[in-house]
Amino acid sequence: MMGSEKIAFLLYPGFTALDVVGPHYMLASLMGAKVWLVAKTAGPVESDLQLAIAATSTFAECPEDLDILCVPGGTRGTASAMQDAATIAFLQERGKRAKYVTSVCTGSMLLGAAGLLDGYKATSHWATREILKEFGAEPVDARVVVDRNRITGAGVTAGLDFGLEIVARQRDEAYAKGMQLLAEYAPAPRFQSGTPETAGPETTTMMRGMLAGAVAQFRKIAEQKKSR
Amino acid sequence: MMGSEKIAFLLYPGFTALDVVGPHYMLASLMGAKVWLVAKTAGPVESDLQLAIAATSTFAECPEDLDILCVPGGTRGTASAMQDAATIAFLQERGKRAKYVTSVCTGSMLLGAAGLLDGYKATSHWATREILKEFGAEPVDARVVVDRNRITGAGVTAGLDFGLEIVARQRDEAYAKGMQLLAEYAPAPRFQSGTPETAGPETTTMMRGMLAGAVAQFRKIAEQKKSR
Repeated sequence: MMGSEKIAFLLYPGFTALDVVGPHYMLASLMGAKVWLVAKTAGPVESDLQLAIAATSTFAECPEDLDILCVPGGTRGTASAMQDAATIAFLQERGKRAKYVTSVCTGSMLLGAAGLLDGYKATSHWATREILKEFGAEPVDARVVVDRNRITGAGVTAGLDFGLEIVARQRDEAYAKGMQLLAEYAPAPRFQSGTPETAGPETTTMMRGMLAGAVAQFRKIAEQKKSR
Repeated sequence: MMGSEKIAFLLYPGFTALDVVGPHYMLASLMGAKVWLVAKTAGPVESDLQLAIAATSTFAECPEDLDILCVPGGTRGTASAMQDAATIAFLQERGKRAKYVTSVCTGSMLLGAAGLLDGYKATSHWATREILKEFGAEPVDARVVVDRNRITGAGVTAGLDFGLEIVARQRDEAYAKGMQLLAEYAPAPRFQSGTPETAGPETTTMMRGMLAGAVAQFRKIAEQKKSR
């Protein structure tokens, strides 16, 4: 089956590479689809773990009518991107025309800052999910949340489930199952510690502590936006 | 807990980006670890899905004594890399000194071509696992296989389980559980189709067909190596 989707991933300094590369694996494998890796300026964009992915186009060069706009999260750079006028303008402009407006992890903070989640059900990384309320969204505790044309994924690795969901929607179940087999996506983590509930209070408190600075920044930006 | 691991990921044209970025997320988050993204020439290296990751150093610039050498797979470029003298020489040289010699997906074909799996239990992408025998390895149907200092992962997304396994070995269970929570690695794919057994014959036959060219190339290179 062929398609001709126009798919764009936003890159910005300090993004989480896995938030992009997980869904990209699934979506760039859609026969006939075209993918743009878009940033303020073309060239390498460094992730929060110092892995640089090359942006293939600038905001201006990105097609205007996208089928899928996908926004990754990050811990270190996302707050800056949320306060960057050109980034927000790009998201607002492409977001209002795109067939699907999507995010993985704290990419939902960026969608929220651009006003794109107001009135929508959505998810985010577990540590930032409640902040969605400040952006007028209704937080849902799920791996992938679909509300009309908004598709949001939970933290980092949820990008795989998110990508597979979009493949199934853009093609069909048989195609998605083929992609899952190609990716050998039969996860078998050695531990069951991927959510606060399964990880338990000790691990969760430790990671909340590590993320506290970023979470506070997101909350502050959300509150400032609301009071304007 | 701190460490000072020296970790290198090989990049080569046509590698699968997710084979690198999955484990990189886990390993680059090890406090104190240093990561090199190594290629024949520094600069952007394009993946099999046209996503370019910037190599941070050349073969020559890569530290000689690595703690972890990690080799990704790919469908389009891996056979060429297996026949590239400089790449094989780099793997042999660093591989004989590294604390752990590792691969994800068809990265095991590259380790095999470099003679680094002879006499070891190992795994690979399901479509190429049996070819490991031609390299003198014993194929094991598992998500992650550890045999002495060889750690191999199955196809693409197994890189996450593989990365978590290494984190647990380099630190401890508590640290690994924290990383799993940070990554929100509580996978919930919409379908159960990640192995030939769960995907069923129709999907498996379709994907085997798609991969037949690459698989034949790997087999041919393995047989040529054996007959030398």
